[in-house]
Amino acid sequence: MAFLQWLDGRGWLVAAGPLGDQDGAGLTVARVPGDKVGELVEAAHQQDASVAEGLFDVLVRPWQVRFATPQER
Amino acid sequence: MAFLQWLDGRGWLVAAGPLGDQDGAGLTVARVPGDKVGELVEAAHQQDASVAEGLFDVLVRPWQVRFATPQER
Repeated sequence: MAFLQWLDGRGWLVAAGPLGDQDGAGLTVARVPGDKVGELVEAAHQQDASVAEGLFDVLVRPWQVRFATPQER
Repeated sequence: MAFLQWLDGRGWLVAAGPLGDQDGAGLTVARVPGDKVGELVEAAHQQDASVAEGLFDVLVRPWQVRFATPQER
């Protein structure tokens, strides 16, 4: 997806992948500086042709991570 | 939240916090062995009194993480 590459290029991509209980649904987590949120929202709607053309919807939600556990990779 | 403590005690909690665009909404990410998913779903519905009593809804969705970037913490 163009949007994921765009996020990754800025160092903002945390994790992404499909939500297995719904065809075509996915979840992307990005860590974005507060003053770049508008840029993120714009890119989320425009970077992917499938979204820009109305085939898929995108919803950007703010997530305040209060608990996080380091993960082995 | 009792459910978060329960998750953390099993080493399954990845990250959790409120979704800032909706009062009372939150997102919790857990990494769970495949054969423990049923246990997770049951706990999500029963560990918190507010969920068990019907004050809040809980939805457990499977997320196949295909891209992940190591994060500094």
